[in-house]
Amino acid sequence: MTLDYDIFDLGTYKFQCGLAVPDCKLAYKTFGTLNAAKDNVIVYPTWYSGQHYDNEWLIGPGMALDPEKYFIVIPNMFGNGLSSSPSNTPEPYNADRFPDVTAYDNVMAQHRLITEKFGIEKVRMVTGWSMGALQTFHWGALFPDMVELIAPFCGSAKCSRHNYVFLEGVKAALRADAAWENGRYTSKPEKGLRAVGRVYAGWGLSQTFYREELDLKALGYASLEDFLIGFWEGFFLPKDANNLLTMAWTWQHGDISDNDLYNGDYKAALGAIKAKAYVMPGQTDLYFPVEDSQNEVANMPNAEYVPVPSIWGHFAGGPGTNPEDVAFIDEKLKELLAS
Amino acid sequence: MTLDYDIFDLGTYKFQCGLAVPDCKLAYKTFGTLNAAKDNVIVYPTWYSGQHYDNEWLIGPGMALDPEKYFIVIPNMFGNGLSSSPSNTPEPYNADRFPDVTAYDNVMAQHRLITEKFGIEKVRMVTGWSMGALQTFHWGALFPDMVELIAPFCGSAKCSRHNYVFLEGVKAALRADAAWENGRYTSKPEKGLRAVGRVYAGWGLSQTFYREELDLKALGYASLEDFLIGFWEGFFLPKDANNLLTMAWTWQHGDISDNDLYNGDYKAALGAIKAKAYVMPGQTDLYFPVEDSQNEVANMPNAEYVPVPSIWGHFAGGPGTNPEDVAFIDEKLKELLAS
Repeated sequence: MTLDYDIFDLGTYKFQCGLAVPDCKLAYKTFGTLNAAKDNVIVYPTWYSGQHYDNEWLIGPGMALDPEKYFIVIPNMFGNGLSSSPSNTPEPYNADRFPDVTAYDNVMAQHRLITEKFGIEKVRMVTGWSMGALQTFHWGALFPDMVELIAPFCGSAKCSRHNYVFLEGVKAALRADAAWENGRYTSKPEKGLRAVGRVYAGWGLSQTFYREELDLKALGYASLEDFLIGFWEGFFLPKDANNLLTMAWTWQHGDISDNDLYNGDYKAALGAIKAKAYVMPGQTDLYFPVEDSQNEVANMPNAEYVPVPSIWGHFAGGPGTNPEDVAFIDEKLKELLAS
Repeated sequence: MTLDYDIFDLGTYKFQCGLAVPDCKLAYKTFGTLNAAKDNVIVYPTWYSGQHYDNEWLIGPGMALDPEKYFIVIPNMFGNGLSSSPSNTPEPYNADRFPDVTAYDNVMAQHRLITEKFGIEKVRMVTGWSMGALQTFHWGALFPDMVELIAPFCGSAKCSRHNYVFLEGVKAALRADAAWENGRYTSKPEKGLRAVGRVYAGWGLSQTFYREELDLKALGYASLEDFLIGFWEGFFLPKDANNLLTMAWTWQHGDISDNDLYNGDYKAALGAIKAKAYVMPGQTDLYFPVEDSQNEVANMPNAEYVPVPSIWGHFAGGPGTNPEDVAFIDEKLKELLAS
């Protein structure tokens, strides 16, 4: 089988939690060509359960992320089923024994890919949606002299307490299914995965999205129940439960300062981001509310607050669902890249 | 055993769904004395899983709901474990065979209590929190010539689509537990009930509540996890699962026009409410957002929009958790009663 993506071999990779996994893999896909000066690089990490395919909506000729101009690298997050994950790691680090992965772990591995594999020393821009935004902030804080621009959209530099609680609901719904078997399931915990979809459904879009019936009028579902089954249950049923739990752990413990550089000093970490930044929350996002983005911008030296005027809740930022939002984000990325 | 509340015998009660349950009971508690003119009556229905005890925070000497002035009746909602419910109804209408109850069913039974038991012809005010607000709107729409004032707080006249979806998540989390046994459980579906608590936790309070750590600073929990276990899991674990599902059905299908009077004409039902109304959403309520209250007020002939300025999310309205919100609501009720 020919893969449509590449694998960077990390060897034995030591995670922040202390586990060292042999033959660790970072799956990635590139678009465009690295120029001779190696100064046309955009890094674009993935989001909760998304794979590189799910990022491609923001890439194309004439768009900000234009492969005719830029060398765009999409690294897959650990736990997403393509990079090392509970589902694809051999014994004994498989399933529920897979490490608790941090965003720091992800970005340090991505940095190795960028530097060791491609010899890149400067990154023009890092951008990403949701957990992709979390990784974007990490790039800015961990490599302040390497990253020129960042554009995190619909995400945060640190998981808020409310966001943490929302994810507790998602996890509890999955784990309520006895078929989950504490992570040692032999068949899919179907009821739990469907429940995850239903719990997520109220959070992913806004109250206004549902009031205006965009599930029917914009997305074409036959009824609200059809949207819950066809979109939300359908979205989570193919995912591996342990992978979802690993990525939820990453999300819940996301914090750009939780590392040796900043030792938990969150404001210092924000203040250290030298990159010019557009921080772009969705205006009706229920779990990354605009206030958190405003707080981040207030503590960053070179950041602008650029809310996405959308009633699509968290989906203002992806995955390419609403054309107006795609156009807005694309335009802002062009503006940022031109600066 | 002496009960601290009374039972009104409804006889065989026919629910809107078509089931007729023999020996149906309406549990209620009264405060104060019905005066000779029978014109000092306040009806104050209960909320999702609440019992009359849980309403008492808004009643007291010197408060708007002053038992020295008013005759206050708290009717318990069907399904709350005191009025007829899946948990206390004999075979064959018990457990999962208990009727799908509407808010209309509840209010029609309450009307019988008020008129048949007490001979009351005028109700000075109906008020209630959350599903109590749903019943309050029903009182206004079903008995427009009987009710003088209504003050629904943190609730709606019709369950919004987003609110419906939120409750789908709650239900799915409960039902994911195999111990639920499709409603024929022989022991408590503990994992499911705990999951309900965790799912609810993100919805009940606002993002700002969690950001400002009011779980610790105002409510005194030792940590966020302690709040999730001590408050949220602790809240739902003692509840009967079928009761919760019955009340969730009532909530999800709440609509003041879903009856023979209005035949689904929601605007007509709102327009028929003659009572002077204060419609009082919590300003940061995530599942009864202010926009829905504004829409209601715009379609009511005699209503004012009176948002509760609170960061306590849905808990702006109860159950007496935040003293500032209690004071605000109490003052507005006094204002309304004085009008």
